[in-house]
This record gives sequence, structure tokens and C-alpha cells, in this order.
Amino acid sequence: MYKHLDAITGPADIKSFGPAERKELAEEIRDRIMRVVSKNGGHFGSNFGVVELTIALHTVFNSPKDKILFDTSHQCYPHKLLTGRHKEFDSLRTYQGISGFCHKDESEHDVAFAGHAGTIASLTLGVAAAADIQNEDNYSVGVVGDSSIVSGMSFEALNHAGHIRKKYLLILNDNDMAISYPVGGFHRYLDKVRTNPVYKEFKKDVESLLDKVPLIGESLHDGLLHVKDALKHALIPGRLFEDLGLRYFGPVDGHDTEALIKAMNAVKDFEEPVLLHVVTKKGAGWAPALEDPIKWHAAKDFLKEEEVTKKDESGNEEGKLEVPKPAVGPRWTKIFDDAIVELAEDDEKVIALTAAMPGGTGLSRFARMFPNRFFDVGICEQHGTAFASGLRYAGLKPVFAVYSTFLQRSFDQVVHDVAIQNNPVVFCMDRGGLVGADGVTHQGLFDISYLRGIPRMVLLAPKDGPELRAMLRWAVDSGEICGIRWPRASVPRPFHEETAPIVLGEGEVIHEGEDICFFAYGAMVDLCQAARDMLKRDDIQPTLVNARFAKPFPVELLIEQAEKHRLVFTVEDHVKAGGFGSAALQALCETRPDLLPKIRILGVEDKFIDHGDRSIQLRDQGLDAAGLAKTVREAMLKVS
Amino acid sequence: MYKHLDAITGPADIKSFGPAERKELAEEIRDRIMRVVSKNGGHFGSNFGVVELTIALHTVFNSPKDKILFDTSHQCYPHKLLTGRHKEFDSLRTYQGISGFCHKDESEHDVAFAGHAGTIASLTLGVAAAADIQNEDNYSVGVVGDSSIVSGMSFEALNHAGHIRKKYLLILNDNDMAISYPVGGFHRYLDKVRTNPVYKEFKKDVESLLDKVPLIGESLHDGLLHVKDALKHALIPGRLFEDLGLRYFGPVDGHDTEALIKAMNAVKDFEEPVLLHVVTKKGAGWAPALEDPIKWHAAKDFLKEEEVTKKDESGNEEGKLEVPKPAVGPRWTKIFDDAIVELAEDDEKVIALTAAMPGGTGLSRFARMFPNRFFDVGICEQHGTAFASGLRYAGLKPVFAVYSTFLQRSFDQVVHDVAIQNNPVVFCMDRGGLVGADGVTHQGLFDISYLRGIPRMVLLAPKDGPELRAMLRWAVDSGEICGIRWPRASVPRPFHEETAPIVLGEGEVIHEGEDICFFAYGAMVDLCQAARDMLKRDDIQPTLVNARFAKPFPVELLIEQAEKHRLVFTVEDHVKAGGFGSAALQALCETRPDLLPKIRILGVEDKFIDHGDRSIQLRDQGLDAAGLAKTVREAMLKVS
Repeated sequence: MYKHLDAITGPADIKSFGPAERKELAEEIRDRIMRVVSKNGGHFGSNFGVVELTIALHTVFNSPKDKILFDTSHQCYPHKLLTGRHKEFDSLRTYQGISGFCHKDESEHDVAFAGHAGTIASLTLGVAAAADIQNEDNYSVGVVGDSSIVSGMSFEALNHAGHIRKKYLLILNDNDMAISYPVGGFHRYLDKVRTNPVYKEFKKDVESLLDKVPLIGESLHDGLLHVKDALKHALIPGRLFEDLGLRYFGPVDGHDTEALIKAMNAVKDFEEPVLLHVVTKKGAGWAPALEDPIKWHAAKDFLKEEEVTKKDESGNEEGKLEVPKPAVGPRWTKIFDDAIVELAEDDEKVIALTAAMPGGTGLSRFARMFPNRFFDVGICEQHGTAFASGLRYAGLKPVFAVYSTFLQRSFDQVVHDVAIQNNPVVFCMDRGGLVGADGVTHQGLFDISYLRGIPRMVLLAPKDGPELRAMLRWAVDSGEICGIRWPRASVPRPFHEETAPIVLGEGEVIHEGEDICFFAYGAMVDLCQAARDMLKRDDIQPTLVNARFAKPFPVELLIEQAEKHRLVFTVEDHVKAGGFGSAALQALCETRPDLLPKIRILGVEDKFIDHGDRSIQLRDQGLDAAGLAKTVREAMLKVS
Repeated sequence: MYKHLDAITGPADIKSFGPAERKELAEEIRDRIMRVVSKNGGHFGSNFGVVELTIALHTVFNSPKDKILFDTSHQCYPHKLLTGRHKEFDSLRTYQGISGFCHKDESEHDVAFAGHAGTIASLTLGVAAAADIQNEDNYSVGVVGDSSIVSGMSFEALNHAGHIRKKYLLILNDNDMAISYPVGGFHRYLDKVRTNPVYKEFKKDVESLLDKVPLIGESLHDGLLHVKDALKHALIPGRLFEDLGLRYFGPVDGHDTEALIKAMNAVKDFEEPVLLHVVTKKGAGWAPALEDPIKWHAAKDFLKEEEVTKKDESGNEEGKLEVPKPAVGPRWTKIFDDAIVELAEDDEKVIALTAAMPGGTGLSRFARMFPNRFFDVGICEQHGTAFASGLRYAGLKPVFAVYSTFLQRSFDQVVHDVAIQNNPVVFCMDRGGLVGADGVTHQGLFDISYLRGIPRMVLLAPKDGPELRAMLRWAVDSGEICGIRWPRASVPRPFHEETAPIVLGEGEVIHEGEDICFFAYGAMVDLCQAARDMLKRDDIQPTLVNARFAKPFPVELLIEQAEKHRLVFTVEDHVKAGGFGSAALQALCETRPDLLPKIRILGVEDKFIDHGDRSIQLRDQGLDAAGLAKTVREAMLKVS
């Protein structure tokens, strides 16, 4: 039972709180988050870091009339607890439960979906401009982390905000920590703002110095009035933001709720863009997280069972939570981790890049072992892609490890700065496919459709760990621009003792069968295998093909299979529109249109898909083994 | 005959030039550019602006050993003239002639293709980092305009450059002019750097002031040493760049070749990232261009015939230039211009946005008439897209007018900030299709394939002017997220007296015929009509369908046509991979796979396509009337 939380149905309920109650509330929020995150997994450090900030926001502003938008929004848990979702919070990140990010369908207090970094400065500016045009009298507040603000898109928004000068409040939540360590000249700058005694301790001294300037300046030109302005400006922290046209205030201690409330009240009525710099600590209030913030970025299972449930009575137990099964065997990411290190040991021209995800993409070990051949560009996928292309000029072999969903950020750079240049970069797309608990903003369901149209692009996907190794090695030496994808999942047991050599545009037959054929891409090969095992009971023995390539499409193999079977099912963990199956249809249309009626496309439907365990998401799309088997059985009835 | 230019075969030939010869050379370059641009069309102001800068670059650096990269590269004409392409320069922007942008296949001095703004800071940093890793002793120099540097990607590169601190020279070519007027807080900042007397005239005074600081500061804390640093820093222009970790030098007069050479020599050996700020004037050396730089951004036909040819003897006449025919009738852009103004007059909720292309996209008149409902976000497509989405929150109806190729920049924002949010924004994609003289970096050939995979996206294309009007009006009120495309071309004569109402996912039959059917998208309807006229001679009367929608696909209409005809040709001005025809196959596969063998896809092949007149590009793809007719004739022979 929580004294305050249990009674809070919305932000209005905390308006009358005094400092002592706010302090208690902060403790309760941390307690609640800790228990649920330990059970369900989720973002830890960032949420602990914004507890006081969120309390202050909901004290000063009136959501939903005032619009509060959270960048990336993995730090939205305190916000959710204060906006009527305390009871449902046990279902965090589970199927049909509370999303781990802001989610418009969940609450009117979630103004926007956010999962990709750097978008909220723009969206909030749009909301602010719209309010201005329509003469609405509400506030538009964006909360942006220091790692998101270096994303180019945020800079574009700051630049535009400084230009149109609408009423607009951006809160820079500066915890000096991306998911990994922050990179970039901008972070050095923030460091200075935070720590330089000039900024922090000598404001008064500076004022008195400025008073004296005209005296010593008598012999100087009138222009010294300008000099005085410039000096003053220089000694105020945040001049970079002021240079861009925003008013800067801060830094404010992000764990002093009262100071935050005071600061927000002070700046909220400026009729111009304001940046309020708040310094927080990721994991504040939990010693282990302060010590190892990277480890505690996301966390799970850190409390004992009894600790989790101690206060769980308040939780809503109806709807029976679907608890994800523990992972079986190593993850795809781990296989890549091994493969890239192995490759780098053999070939000193191999360079690896990440956009702030060394751990997530499996590059932490590479980074330690080959620091001079590793680049973390920060949350700057656009730059990362073009930078990788530039690395290629001197004959290096860049491998950009990136989530499928985040490579969307640099689609144009893949076209313009890699493919048109004909600079072979290898994109290793982790989280390709249905991603599970991260949900709608993180689904890796578009990479085939957005990359396949690009000339010179080669798209491939491994069925198992040894094939990932083989493909990576092949790709790096192929002289082709490659996109290799794998899902956020455990890797299946290897299919063969030895992986057959990779040949551009050629697939392989795993099992010869009859009547129907699974023509599967990447991780779907394993699920088709499982479906095949189920179908044996019905005396159906499908052929199983591992396509390996989506582009160039293994069309000869497809023709062979289509000639031999009554039906060929293409199977992909990707939207059907423009994906792998679509490539199959196009390839046949150009070669053997007479075989087209035998093709059926199995893939993800044309809609956005929320969070939930990957196995549930696959099931919902009919892409789990049972679903695939069922589809085949039904199709067999129709054609026979 | 040109005294210097005619003798220059490469940059080595100008190394020994003295100031007087460089001055003459600059005049010759301007003369040559003027004549060719008047004849062929092309970028004028930007090239006149960088004549001295380019001479200085090729005097100080040794291309191709040193890598000189031009951002956007529309300012590459002087570079081309100095790197052995003077003779071929008459073929500028024509089929198989010299490209209007840097082009790797054309010369080893063109290090990268560039056509989209903001990419070169990244590519150059990659080149620099690679040189560093491989211990090469060359220079990497990027030339970036002030409008490109506000593009988020450039900021990401600056931030990364300030972090990794490799030897790297970025030249900021600051002409205070985007294609239109510059926008953004950053430009205000540059304005200050350029014009504030503090920066320009009081350097010495400031130095003496600084010397005095310790004296008056005795009573103050030791920290005043920091204050002195901060003061010094503040009084040096370009501190924003210094804050990001680059060394800043400038501003230098970009039309003083000798000063430029001196500055480049002074900074080139810094073992860290350097930004050299050069102030140029677009159109320098040509009074009319200085007076109206927007008009003179790109120009044509401004000299009389005899002026153009006066010195043309040096030109290479072989290969007979293909001179584009003058446009017939109004352009698609003009129709949009009228349509959006008309719509805005009727509906005050309509807001229009552009990313630095008010003229190119047809929004200049809108901007003048409805300044409060118009936003030019600068070359910041990512921000523009999310900002438009934000505008939607208050019930406004944002229309983002953007070239198809530039919308690629905000692919992820369309997914994440528009479609997932379910915020109806209307994207009006000009230059959708083969774009003619701008060439490979500007082709609008991917928009269907990258947008079609996105749930909730509606894709449509008008066949003629009245349909564009009808579609725009429909889209804005549809509550759908729409992408409407049209090409860079003249609009055909209207097909009907009155346009039939637009209905989501429904096409229309233009002519009933027999045997075969053209199922055409957008501007291809007119070309199919022309093909139909040619086929009449052979007694072939194809049916002509205007599909109107690529998504949702008009599948009922397709089934009808496939049932009635022996063959149905889908026709699109877009790559085949994942495009309109691909959508047709998928739609039939899900409904009537038996009809699939009747479908043939006509579209653009899977390769990058260089500059040349749009009519030639269409011909090469078999998508002109004659090519379409020929394809039909051949297919008729095969099926009969």
C-alpha cells in the first residue's frame, strides 16, 4: 500500500502537495518502479533520474491541457504513475499491458508516441506553433535528454525554435549519460557548463567585474558597450543555446523538487523559446545504479521474489500477465559479438560503428579490444552512415551495427551517401523483425521494403549462428553494400555441421519435401522447421528452403520449387508490403509469370504492432510454428 | 579562346600562378560558366560565389591526393573547370554530358557524389578518420554552405568531429543565402559573427582589455583566470564552433583569393578539426545576380544567342548536345501553387511547410499571402516532418511540400512522428519520378517503395492538373496520412471536363479497350494515352486505367481488368522493386492469385540514373509513348 500513490488518479491530485509530501511521493514512485521493473524488465536508471522532475512538471503544468512531451520516453514511468496508471503499472511492457514508452492510446496525458531519440523538440515546437496560431493559452513543454539533443533532428528544432520564437519550453534533462557513455563535442560543452567554476560560483564576481569595465575602457572605442554585452553573454552558461536564439536558464539541480518548481514557474510565461537546463543523475536514489549506470540503464530480476511482491497488493492482477519465458541459448546479438571480434582479429581493415548502442548491438567487446577501429557516433545515425561511407575511401571495411528501426533514421544516407557513392558498407541490423516488449516504435518491420528499392543494395539474413558468421565474413569482403538482419531473439541450434559457402543471390534447400514449400527468410527458417515437425503428424512433408538473400532474389531456386510444388509460401518477419514475399512475386513476374499463382506471402499485416512478448507477436501474425502449420493445412484443403 | 583555362588540364597547372594570373583566371571561369549556364541552365549564383574559393583550394591543396569534398555540390562548376573538364563543360547537365554536381565516375577529383545538403561534413570526417587510421599524410577538406550546415546531419558531424579530434578542415562557405532566404537561429548567429563590430574591429582593444583584467581582478577569486579565458573565448567569433570542439578561424573575405590562400595555408596543418569561416556573395561578379540572388540561384537563357556562342570555339561539339525542348503548358508545380492557395483561401486551418524550397515546390505565393500559416524550416526535412505532425495536434491541417528525393531525409519521421502518432499530414511530393538534368542524386524514384510499407499511409498520384487539385482537397480533409506525387514536368491537358470525385483506394477507367490494359499511376496515364494513340495504327486498342491510388491499391478494379484482358501492364515512373506494380502483384496474390500471370510491371530498372532530359530518361527506360507501345506490341505477339 502506498500512502500517496494509491490515492492519485491524475496530476490534479498532487497540486496541493507540500514539499514533505512531494518527498514521500518521490520515494513511493521509486519503490513502485523498482519492484515492477525487477519483475517485468524495463528502463531503470532514466526513470529513477526523473522522479523529482516529473513531480515538478505535474505540479507546475496542467496536463492534459498543457502538453508535456517526453523525448524517447523511456523515462515516462513516473509520468505514468502520476497520470492515473498506477494500478495498471504491474502490466508494464507486457502484452496488452502498459507500454514502456508514451503511448497515445493509453492516456490523454501521453501527447505523442516516442521511442526514437531526438524527435520531441520538433513535435513540441509544432504543438507550440499550432497553439500560437489558434490563440490557445496552454503551455507546450518538451523534456529532452542530453544524448537526444545531439541528434541532428533536435538541433534542427532548436535552430527553428530560435527563428520563429514562439512560446516554447524545452527542458534539457542532462544526466551526462547516454545509454553508453556520451560522445561528442557538445557533451564536453555541457560538461563545462556544469562544472566550470566560472559559471557556477562567480556570478557575483563577474557582475562586479562588468561594472568596472567602462572605467578601464575609457580609452577604448564606443564599441566597448558591445564588448560589455558580449562579456556578459559569455559568462552566462548556455550561451550556445542563446546563440541559437533560445533563452537559457540553469543549471538547476534535478533532484531538488522545490528548486525545479521554482525554476519552471519562473520561466513558463516567457513569450519566447526557453531552454531550462536540469542536471539529474541516472539511477538517483539507488546506490548500485549510481555506481554502474550503464548496467542499470535497463534492468531485470534484481530483487528477490518476496521483495517484488511485498507491496504488490495494489497491483491489478486481472487479465493474467503473460510473463516472457526465459531465453533459451545465446542471443543473436551475442553471436554477432563473437563474429565481429573474430573477423577483426583476422582482418585489420575491419572497422565497427555504433550509434550509442555498443552493448545493444554487441560491440562492447570489439570496442575494448580494438579501440582505434571502433566509433560510437552517438545517437546520430545519419552522420554514422555517411561517416562509415567516408571510412571506405581509404580501403577500410566499415561495419555499422544498428537496430533495424534506427537505420530508418539514415535511409537517405544509405541511398545518397552509400549506394550512390558505391561505397561498400555493411549494415548489421539487429532487432530486425518483431521486437517484443519495446513495442510499436521499435519494431524492425520495414527494413526490406525501404532498402530493397535502392540499387546496389544486397539484403541477406542468416538462419542460425554459424550462418551469421559466414554471412558477415562474406559481406565484408564482397565489395557489396549489404544489409544483414536478425531478430531480437535467441538463436536456434545450428542446422548443419558446416555452413555451405555463401554465394550472392543463392539460397539453399534444407529439407526436400512434397506438395508445399516454405521459402523462408532468416530467423523464419527455424519457425518453418518447427511447423514442418508439427505437420508431419498430418502426413504433410513440406520442403524447407533457406532463401538467404532477399536481394538479389534467388529466383532460380524459387522457380525450381514452384515447378515442383503445388504451393510455395514465402515466410518473413517483416511487413508484407514491399518485403521478401513481394520480391518473390516480382522476380517471378519477370521470369516465369505462369508460376505466380503458386505463391503465397506470409508476413506481418499492414498495421502497427504494440508491445508484448515476441512469441505472442509472432502468434498474432500467424507466424509461429502452430500458425504456419495451420495456414499450410488450410491451404492444402483449398488446393486439393 | 581563354588565355588560362584553355591550357589547364588539371589543378597542377595553376600552382605556379601569381595573384594577377589568378585574377584573370577568376574572370575566365566566370565568363565560361555564364555562357554555358545561359545555354544549358544550371546553378548560377552559388558558382559565381565560389570562384576565388575554388582557385585557392586548388592552389593550396593537391587534389586528388588531398580530398576536397563539396556539400550539395551545385557549386562545383569552377572545380570542374580546374580539374580537366573545361573542354567538356559545354555539355553541362545534358544527357551523357558533364553532371551539374560532383560525380565520381567523371573525375578522380570528384571524391563523392553530392546533391542532398548537409552530407559532406560527415563524409569528409570519415575520409579524414580513415586517413588517420591508415597513417596517410593527405588532407581532407569539406566545403559546406551556411544553409547546409544547419541540416541536422551536419551538426551531428561537427559534434563528432569535436569529439574524435582528427585532422579535418571544414570550410564554411557563408553567403547568407539558402536557395531562398536563410532561416534559423543559427543564421542570426552567423549574422552576428559577420557584422558585429565587437568581432570585426576591436580585436586589439579586446586584447588590451584582457591584459588589464588581472589588475582589477585582484580582489577576486583565483577562478578569474578562468574568467579571463572565458572572456577571450567570448570575444573570438565562432565560439559556437569552439564550444563543439572545433578550432574556429575567420571570417575571411571569400573573394580575396590571396587572403584565402594565406588562411588555408595557416590552418591546414593543425592536427585537429578546424572550421574556416569564409564569407562569399552568391553571384559575385555579376551585378544582376547580386541584386536578386533568389532569381539567380538557378538560371537559363539570360544571354542572347550571339553572346553565348562568342567564345564557344573552345567547346567540344562532338556528340551533338541534346537540348531540352521548351516546356509545353504549365508545370505540375504551378498547378500545386494555384491549388494550395485556393485551398487555403477556403480553409484557414490549412498550413503549408517547405524545407528551404518555397519556389521549387510552388509555395512562394502561399508564403506571401498567408505568412502566418507558412513555415520554411530550412534544409531540415526531419524536423519539418515532425514539426508538421506537431501542428496537427491543435487541429490544423499541415501540408508539407517537398521533393520526393528530399522526403527520403525524413523517412523515419514519417514512420515514427507521423504514422505511429496517427497525425494526418499531407506530403506533396514534387519531382516524383525521373527528374531530368539534376541527375542521380535527385531522382524521385523510391517514394512508393519506402512509403508503402508504412501502415496508415495513403499514396496517390494525379493524372492531370484538375485531379491534383481534387486530390489535394480530398487529402487535406480525409483524415489520412497522404503522400501525393507528381513529376518535374509539364502537366498534360486535362482529361475530362470534370474530375470524378476522389474515393479512397479507387481508380477510374479512362478508355475502355480490348486485349490489353494499361493500369497506370499518376503522370504515366498521359504517356499511356499517347502510346494508345500510336497503337491504334496497329489496330490495338488498349484499355486505359488511371489507378489514382498506389495504397490502398484499387484491387477490385485490377481484378476486373485482369478478368477482361489478356494482359494488364502496370505503369509507373518509379523503380519496380516495391513500387506500384509490386503493390498490384501483392494485392492480387491476396485476392485472386489465379490472375497473377496476366500482370506485367513496367517501371524503372534497378540502377541509378544519371542526368539528361526527362524525355530521354523515360525513353531509356522504355517508358515513353513509343517504348510503351513497343512493349505492348511485343507482348501481344507472345501471348497470341
